[in-house]
Amino acid sequence: MRQFVVVGHDAPTTPDFSLEDLPGAGRLDVLCRCVNSAFFLSHTLRENVRAHLVLADEYVVRFEGAELRRLNPDERSTAALIRGALEAREGAIGAMEANPSPGVYIGKGDFESTVRSVAEESTLVELHEDGRPVVDLDPPSDPVFVLSDHHDFTDAEAALLADVADERVSLGPEPLHADHAITVAHNYLDTDGFGIY
Amino acid sequence: MRQFVVVGHDAPTTPDFSLEDLPGAGRLDVLCRCVNSAFFLSHTLRENVRAHLVLADEYVVRFEGAELRRLNPDERSTAALIRGALEAREGAIGAMEANPSPGVYIGKGDFESTVRSVAEESTLVELHEDGRPVVDLDPPSDPVFVLSDHHDFTDAEAALLADVADERVSLGPEPLHADHAITVAHNYLDTDGFGIY
Repeated sequence: MRQFVVVGHDAPTTPDFSLEDLPGAGRLDVLCRCVNSAFFLSHTLRENVRAHLVLADEYVVRFEGAELRRLNPDERSTAALIRGALEAREGAIGAMEANPSPGVYIGKGDFESTVRSVAEESTLVELHEDGRPVVDLDPPSDPVFVLSDHHDFTDAEAALLADVADERVSLGPEPLHADHAITVAHNYLDTDGFGIY
Repeated sequence: MRQFVVVGHDAPTTPDFSLEDLPGAGRLDVLCRCVNSAFFLSHTLRENVRAHLVLADEYVVRFEGAELRRLNPDERSTAALIRGALEAREGAIGAMEANPSPGVYIGKGDFESTVRSVAEESTLVELHEDGRPVVDLDPPSDPVFVLSDHHDFTDAEAALLADVADERVSLGPEPLHADHAITVAHNYLDTDGFGIY
């Protein structure tokens, strides 16, 4: 299982946003592209992937690759799935998530609870420009990559990651958008650490 | 200079399409994501990149990284740039392109003329699942990667590529969307062939 946690600092927490202006909806376009990168292969989805979108430290939308049925590659339709999840947000009570469409869940949650939860059973990889080159890392079998949207991690988020991360790696010398980092991380794992396949 | 040629088999050749339905506009969403992958780094653009979108073998929209000023990461705004180029298409006469916005050019052209033109001065890399692993290739200094949209290359396109390509490589064992392939190709070049950086 490969997992990705993406923090949307300004992301909407209600469905009152326009699909015609995703950048204006707290840069929801960034999160939509991250979902695309996490799941899409040509003509199929990666089933062994889970993605968690942390929306403004209030809700977490979870996508399960093995269950997804209505995911399309374009930003707008993914945003519509997220909007549908937010419409169902009042069905998320306590630790119980709502499940508004196949493979899409919404629950109350924040960055810290999400990161601590996924770190329990996986190798948590912090992507950082000062990390060691990913090629020097043996590909973990159950990695979680934690990424931020168009903003850097806050000081509190960075401190938490420094505390719980198993690895701190860099994917290359250029600073990448979160969705591009997900694509490179997948390729790194697909090719057994860019080596043999 | 890194170049990317992306073929949009069903792409629009007039500006009469809706920004609210890019998948319905001949899968223009795919081409928009390719432009994003070709140019965006965190907080900056890759200036040393040129991308050519071949629209239904009728027009070619060319993006110049060093000149681009109004490119944003989201699909919709990139589609608006392409629509603006198509609105200016009648200004492209013979071999002369129109230049409707900074770094965006439109000219008459097709796959064959585009591929033959870029192949003259660059190392043309065909991405193919049966190609040799990209890690075995020494990173060329002036590569052109040729990619197809959601369709495979036609037989005629594949025959042309087989004829003019300098290299035929595979980026990994999984079949990638064109935009993801561009991201991986950039990372391969950024890291000097996934090696040292």
